[in-house]
Amino acid sequence: MNSKQIRRLLARTRLEDGKGFRLRDHDPGDIAAKVVRESEAEALLAGGVERLAALQTQLYAQSTWSLLCVFQAMDAAGKDGTISHVMSGVNPQGVHVHSFKAPSSDELAHDFLWRVSRELPRAGHIGIFNRSHYEEVLITRVHPDLLAHQNLPDTLRKKKHFWRDRLADIAAWEGYLARQGTVVLKFFLNISRAEQKKRFLERIDTPAKHWKFRPEDVAERAHWDEYMAAYEAAIAATATPAAPWFIVPADSKWFARLVVVSAMIDALERMALEPPTTTADDAARMAEARRLLEAEKP
Amino acid sequence: MNSKQIRRLLARTRLEDGKGFRLRDHDPGDIAAKVVRESEAEALLAGGVERLAALQTQLYAQSTWSLLCVFQAMDAAGKDGTISHVMSGVNPQGVHVHSFKAPSSDELAHDFLWRVSRELPRAGHIGIFNRSHYEEVLITRVHPDLLAHQNLPDTLRKKKHFWRDRLADIAAWEGYLARQGTVVLKFFLNISRAEQKKRFLERIDTPAKHWKFRPEDVAERAHWDEYMAAYEAAIAATATPAAPWFIVPADSKWFARLVVVSAMIDALERMALEPPTTTADDAARMAEARRLLEAEKP
Repeated sequence: MNSKQIRRLLARTRLEDGKGFRLRDHDPGDIAAKVVRESEAEALLAGGVERLAALQTQLYAQSTWSLLCVFQAMDAAGKDGTISHVMSGVNPQGVHVHSFKAPSSDELAHDFLWRVSRELPRAGHIGIFNRSHYEEVLITRVHPDLLAHQNLPDTLRKKKHFWRDRLADIAAWEGYLARQGTVVLKFFLNISRAEQKKRFLERIDTPAKHWKFRPEDVAERAHWDEYMAAYEAAIAATATPAAPWFIVPADSKWFARLVVVSAMIDALERMALEPPTTTADDAARMAEARRLLEAEKP
Repeated sequence: MNSKQIRRLLARTRLEDGKGFRLRDHDPGDIAAKVVRESEAEALLAGGVERLAALQTQLYAQSTWSLLCVFQAMDAAGKDGTISHVMSGVNPQGVHVHSFKAPSSDELAHDFLWRVSRELPRAGHIGIFNRSHYEEVLITRVHPDLLAHQNLPDTLRKKKHFWRDRLADIAAWEGYLARQGTVVLKFFLNISRAEQKKRFLERIDTPAKHWKFRPEDVAERAHWDEYMAAYEAAIAATATPAAPWFIVPADSKWFARLVVVSAMIDALERMALEPPTTTADDAARMAEARRLLEAEKP
């Protein structure tokens, strides 16, 4: 995967400014045929995964920057498969994946960024959020009864511009993280309603996949348009150069994976990671250590 | 890697009963030539890593058992490399690796199992401890001044059989974890003093490896025999069928990795993981989901 291909893939999917963003301009089936052909995909992906693993080693050795990748999507869009595929080969010691489920009562008793903050990657690490704080402006927005459980003072919950303020809070927090050395990439795996139906039926038909399927997910399809509106609003309000969104066409799994690995490679390369330098002081201590080792009785 | 090879590798290294355990009976350079030849190692390891990845998927799908692998060793014995190599290919979503460093003041203000408990794998996951609660009966035992910082009441710290009691507490806790469905495997990567010296010199000679080397680690070699005595006592007191130790000859990296992957495969196979079964009730809900999907307007 050369840097020209990476740049072209990302040019079609990266969003650094949400002004005027409309989801309907992004085709979940777009596989950017002119950039990459499916026949090349496997080899490109394998190369990308290898490159990512090498960059992660440099990230870990330097231990100043960190990378946070947020994955958001409708059910069956391929979050789990993408994470597992793209991160295979990366040293698990430098990766922290966290799947956010329905919040516990303890979590609900805190501000909504509290539980995600606890799972942020440490310096030198890659953090992967499978779902994230964005659930608080997506599912919670589509199902307002969830908001009622959030221990918020009534006067605040009923405030005008509640969602606009919440989105601004998210954008501000992500800007803060960026200033702390955590590069934030946000992936929306954009699956079509028809493809989701196909994948649900496939899960129903395959007993080995039943554990991945919750029949109640089908009912959620009734809210599809509301979800899309919530995604559109969230992406429009929080796409910034410091924390860009990637609108990843996800009807084709191989293509989605290529975009994700490209975005991660690009972000790590921009950090211009250098191996930690050995200062004169370090060098003297190394020499002393060598002297001690060599002076030992055998 | 067939099950006969796995059994033979483990027969030489697994310890389920610490009575009469003596570290000097275990050769760090033992590479069990009759079981595996170095020329076969790479292919065997690749096969083992693949098998492990497949078993982890079953563990994750079933989500009842979990596996905790504890790695303890002297510096440069290869903990990091072993973890990274063996766990490559395993879905990072189902793995949680935690490296325990010197405890923070907040951690020191709690009982010594507090911070490790917080990092235990959830059901269906594999947890990897790079160092662990055993540091509290190893480095803390070799350097008693560390114990003085542990906020313990004087009367308790000065108690007769302090270390024996602490080891019994560890064994009891691990037994409890086993009864909760967490299979605990403990790996002592057994490196010789001479091999450590060789690896330290290599790190000093290779600028790219400087970040892995702390000159003060050389000074720790003066306590080698005390560390070995502490390891021997710890292993003897805590090797149980519920939480066995593996005394892994670690002068040869490829051999150590084969033993570790074998032990993990064996432990997962003993769980006899079955895909979650579909109950009649589940089946009815699946059928209803299918009906709803198919009734949707296109």
